[in-house]
Amino acid sequence: MGYTDVDQLAINTIRLLAVDATAKANSGHPGAPMGMAPVAHVLFNKFMTFNPKNPKWVNRDRFVLSNGHGCMLQYALLHLFGYAVSLDDLKNFRQLDSITPGHPESHDTPGIEVTTGPLGQGFANAVGLAIAQAHTGALFNKPGFDLINNHTYVFFGDGCAMEGVASEAASMAGHLKLGNLICIYDDNHISIDGDTKCAFTEDVMARFESYGWHTEWVKDGDNDLEAIEAAIRRAKEVTDKPSVIKLTTTIGYGSKLQGTGGVHGNPLKADDIEGVKKRFGFDPAQSFVVPQQVYDMYNQHAAEGAAAEQKWNDLFAKYASEYKAEHADLARRLAGKLPEGWEKSLPTYKPSDPAIATRKLSEAVLEKVHSVVPELLSGSADLTGSNNTRWKNAVDFQPPEYGIGEWSGRYLRYGVREHAMAAAMNGLAAYGTVIPAGGTFLNFVSYAAGAVRLSALSRVRTIHVATHDSIGLGEDGPTHQPIETLAHFRALPNVMVWRPADGNETSAAYYSALTSQHTPSILALTRQNLPQLEESTIERALRGGYPVVEAPGAAVTIVSTGSEVSICIDAATYLKEKHGIVARVVSIPCFEVFDAQDKEYRLSVLPDGIPVLSVEALTTMGWERYSHEQFGLNRFGASGPYKKVYERFEFTPEGISKRAISTIEFYKGHSVRSPVNRAFQQIL
Amino acid sequence: MGYTDVDQLAINTIRLLAVDATAKANSGHPGAPMGMAPVAHVLFNKFMTFNPKNPKWVNRDRFVLSNGHGCMLQYALLHLFGYAVSLDDLKNFRQLDSITPGHPESHDTPGIEVTTGPLGQGFANAVGLAIAQAHTGALFNKPGFDLINNHTYVFFGDGCAMEGVASEAASMAGHLKLGNLICIYDDNHISIDGDTKCAFTEDVMARFESYGWHTEWVKDGDNDLEAIEAAIRRAKEVTDKPSVIKLTTTIGYGSKLQGTGGVHGNPLKADDIEGVKKRFGFDPAQSFVVPQQVYDMYNQHAAEGAAAEQKWNDLFAKYASEYKAEHADLARRLAGKLPEGWEKSLPTYKPSDPAIATRKLSEAVLEKVHSVVPELLSGSADLTGSNNTRWKNAVDFQPPEYGIGEWSGRYLRYGVREHAMAAAMNGLAAYGTVIPAGGTFLNFVSYAAGAVRLSALSRVRTIHVATHDSIGLGEDGPTHQPIETLAHFRALPNVMVWRPADGNETSAAYYSALTSQHTPSILALTRQNLPQLEESTIERALRGGYPVVEAPGAAVTIVSTGSEVSICIDAATYLKEKHGIVARVVSIPCFEVFDAQDKEYRLSVLPDGIPVLSVEALTTMGWERYSHEQFGLNRFGASGPYKKVYERFEFTPEGISKRAISTIEFYKGHSVRSPVNRAFQQIL
Ligand SMILES: [Ca+2]
Ligand SMILES: [Ca+2]
Repeated sequence: MGYTDVDQLAINTIRLLAVDATAKANSGHPGAPMGMAPVAHVLFNKFMTFNPKNPKWVNRDRFVLSNGHGCMLQYALLHLFGYAVSLDDLKNFRQLDSITPGHPESHDTPGIEVTTGPLGQGFANAVGLAIAQAHTGALFNKPGFDLINNHTYVFFGDGCAMEGVASEAASMAGHLKLGNLICIYDDNHISIDGDTKCAFTEDVMARFESYGWHTEWVKDGDNDLEAIEAAIRRAKEVTDKPSVIKLTTTIGYGSKLQGTGGVHGNPLKADDIEGVKKRFGFDPAQSFVVPQQVYDMYNQHAAEGAAAEQKWNDLFAKYASEYKAEHADLARRLAGKLPEGWEKSLPTYKPSDPAIATRKLSEAVLEKVHSVVPELLSGSADLTGSNNTRWKNAVDFQPPEYGIGEWSGRYLRYGVREHAMAAAMNGLAAYGTVIPAGGTFLNFVSYAAGAVRLSALSRVRTIHVATHDSIGLGEDGPTHQPIETLAHFRALPNVMVWRPADGNETSAAYYSALTSQHTPSILALTRQNLPQLEESTIERALRGGYPVVEAPGAAVTIVSTGSEVSICIDAATYLKEKHGIVARVVSIPCFEVFDAQDKEYRLSVLPDGIPVLSVEALTTMGWERYSHEQFGLNRFGASGPYKKVYERFEFTPEGISKRAISTIEFYKGHSVRSPVNRAFQQIL
Repeated sequence: MGYTDVDQLAINTIRLLAVDATAKANSGHPGAPMGMAPVAHVLFNKFMTFNPKNPKWVNRDRFVLSNGHGCMLQYALLHLFGYAVSLDDLKNFRQLDSITPGHPESHDTPGIEVTTGPLGQGFANAVGLAIAQAHTGALFNKPGFDLINNHTYVFFGDGCAMEGVASEAASMAGHLKLGNLICIYDDNHISIDGDTKCAFTEDVMARFESYGWHTEWVKDGDNDLEAIEAAIRRAKEVTDKPSVIKLTTTIGYGSKLQGTGGVHGNPLKADDIEGVKKRFGFDPAQSFVVPQQVYDMYNQHAAEGAAAEQKWNDLFAKYASEYKAEHADLARRLAGKLPEGWEKSLPTYKPSDPAIATRKLSEAVLEKVHSVVPELLSGSADLTGSNNTRWKNAVDFQPPEYGIGEWSGRYLRYGVREHAMAAAMNGLAAYGTVIPAGGTFLNFVSYAAGAVRLSALSRVRTIHVATHDSIGLGEDGPTHQPIETLAHFRALPNVMVWRPADGNETSAAYYSALTSQHTPSILALTRQNLPQLEESTIERALRGGYPVVEAPGAAVTIVSTGSEVSICIDAATYLKEKHGIVARVVSIPCFEVFDAQDKEYRLSVLPDGIPVLSVEALTTMGWERYSHEQFGLNRFGASGPYKKVYERFEFTPEGISKRAISTIEFYKGHSVRSPVNRAFQQIL
């Protein structure tokens, strides 16, 4: 307690940096930074421990700006505390190649934990960060070694509060009793459409209480620094529940348009800026001003953070001698390395092994790998028995008092909350000590599209176990049968979409997913059994595409994925026996990985001279890139036993053969170039 | 009140029909039907008014089974009441070509209002149905003519309660005080992962109260029919709030596995079926048994419904004489016809008209059309000023007591709830008297993917106004710049994805969207200004694709959409002036509409003999279908002023020309067939 003029000066400095930066960019959101500068000042200086010189120190307190449009607030703080964000960077706010983009991006800017802006995501990321802390602490903390005990703090606004993904995450956090999660709700009564009374009149605090949260209300979030501090302190004292603090603020505090939608998403006008600067005692003729006392105050707190890290490092060194194995494990995780030789545990299969659904093969991988990759946390959005995501002796991650799990448990019951699951997984991955895998039906990964997109953009290693990957799920019917889903995620940059055809390809998919440190993966897996291929190996599958039937003098190449590969192999036999036509068959379990191979290899897989027919029981869209003709399903599926559904849509050796023959006929007399050949390369 | 043995017999008949149908299909969910048969029996017989012989009667009470996996409950009810669902249809549950698919599909089965199964959707659809009722009633009801006063009833389970889309919708319904919406929550403590205590321990009723709902709790939902009836009656009496009734039930009531996850998603075993039938006094040797007393009871209620419709028809005939215009308007809407000549109000543009953003051109359409298409309801997910979805004199749809709108208002403030907006729009469209249009940024239509998918599958006319459609949004940066979004929705069957290039194309997009009675549309619109094209007309654009620069002797065709079309036209000039190369330019504002044109036309647009280069500032995926080479953005965008971002990624006349030249070179000496030519047709 005990705030001085310097505190107020710092708060106004932050406000004016946001005003100046948005004005210079002629773009951006000054309102939220101006309204939330007081709580940011109190939180960062009085409660948060972090070292700006090492933004990746594992036990730092995490901060998430879920209302990411207010990012000038965070950029200003990062600058003042001495992160590698300069005053010039602030002046380049929202400019090409700056490290201060229009919304916070974790891979761009030191000190940004997660990429936010799409509303609700940051809140749900924070739940993942808090789960990761609770889990990691339970694993590694020992008497006298409270190594992992950081808090996760979140700012969120009305927009986040309205988003379903945040509601799901809040319900999950309440259930999980995440005591180290403290969220501050910017209750400013304004959203883009103006007064929240036009759309949002619920009792937000009562809702959080219904989820099992502790709630606080600070009535004057603009000025009452003591009340802000007291509320955060009480929230910290509640350790068996997450806390939310409703902070009633004035958006755009200081502007003549304060408290209105006019300051939400537009820079202040020149005369207004002048007025604000005068009101705050700053020189209206100057911009981007930081008084030295403010730097001094912030540098001092930064120094305290650096000292705290040093103390932690000493403790961790001592830990090494008393808890050698645990120290090595945590140190290895923090270095981003998987355990030596872990991949030897991946199951391999012979052609004579029985036909198994890839969802079961995925389970077999988890069963083998979980003990050698201790950072792997699995889970499901209430489809555990269908996704096969749980190894036999898994312990659930639960507050121990429920009697059904432990904080150290590695299996997450996300509930029927696909979007929050994916968003929480982004937070889990961002924490730095765990690798999250989460299951749902492939069709319902679409519910989580907003979060998966941010997995890709923010370059985190999350694994989406997406079972029931086609009409092959059968009776559940069109509402559950994905058609567009693979095209959607294949079109999303920086995602590995795998659709393995058998056991070896499933192991390859996991190898790729677990070793792709900066890329999320979606594993599309079948409900139905698939035979083990003659030609598959983990190594071959890891090239993304490879021939599974090689045949000299072939008239056509048939490319396929997953459950259709073995039908294509049967089609090749059928073509030979019934029509005397020789066909090659290629499996392309992952477009993205195949695309990364050298051209010579890709041309060997899809050679010049003969046409390529693609076969996949989903939309044909996207297959044009790898084939001349496409056989797929550009309509919704049907409810029925899966073999009948496959027959109906002609995904049979006969149906494929018919189209292979049409393809051969169509290209007869034409010179055929492989689709691998392109006139020019894309900008990447 | 006053329940007899026949009531119990009817309830057990429903339970056993679900048991028999799932057993015969060896697939499906018996648990929810067995648990919810009592409340279904009471609700349908004591409260709901409907005519099974005319499932489309406008003032019928609506019923939505949001936990759609329990659809055998609804199929059994439809059969018993005499809808066109036979006992044979029940025997064909989950079989190919049956009208009893694995989840309820509104276009397949008479009496199904909306397509459900993907959890949370039905609940949010029902909010749309209730809005439509409130709005339509406010428009057409007159003293003595209470024409539109139906209730909307929903069943939902734990899964729906956990889904964010339902949370969003519940908050919206509470704000809107939808008194005619009554939802029944099947509180059976079981979800697929088993006991809900593993993931879902919030206080659901307290949460609904925080949204402003009236709540009730029936403690014995298995047996206490009087309590069920009393709770629904009290809920009906509360007319200024939506109501939710928590009904504590036993999943799979009657099975030896009742109350466990074992009865959720799997048919009962043979011995269990035998036991259930004995327990309920049925002959274990028989299946699909309906006692005549049950038919009699249900037929009697069906007859009351038919009489109610007849009475309504008489009233509506009388209404014709007193309220001629209103009668004609409602009759026209119910006939599914737009007002004669409405399309004359669509704005048209000359090349000399100023450059305007397509989001503003969309606003101009709404401004012109709203008065001649009174069934058009617009709205936005809290981006009104950015989406330009509100015409100037629009009245908000709001409970009048807020003082900011009326029930008859035609502008919906959905809040920051994209998913619930889209799902509510599905309900609005399904009601039959309105056409909903709703705005958000294109990137955030992805948040609503689950609902948009069901718009397409259930064949409803919804219009998604998706502004800020590319990197052209500029400073907001990669978190907001769609890359994969158009590919995603183009890959989804039965959706018209429009990306207009100017004013005439924007008008064409609206013409298509408003006249496509069984197809949703997504209108991808720019933030930045676009010039009016020389060659565009509404008629030409309505073919989905057409040449905007025709040039004899062209060496290349450049195809594009939206904001890139005019840059391609400049590229054609640049190619001519700098390189002496003649290029044609084609605009393809809508793939789906273009695909529906005859082949001769499509070949005239994309002719044989010269290569085609596509240009779109989003993923290239999908463009291979219309072009030989593709120029796009297969990576995330960048934050900066939009012109600089376009330059960075070379979407300039020079950048396009460079790739056009590469394309021409690459195909030199090769015979070039138009991509319109295909070896075979897809199954549709
Ligand atoms: Ca706000
Ligand atoms: Ca349940």
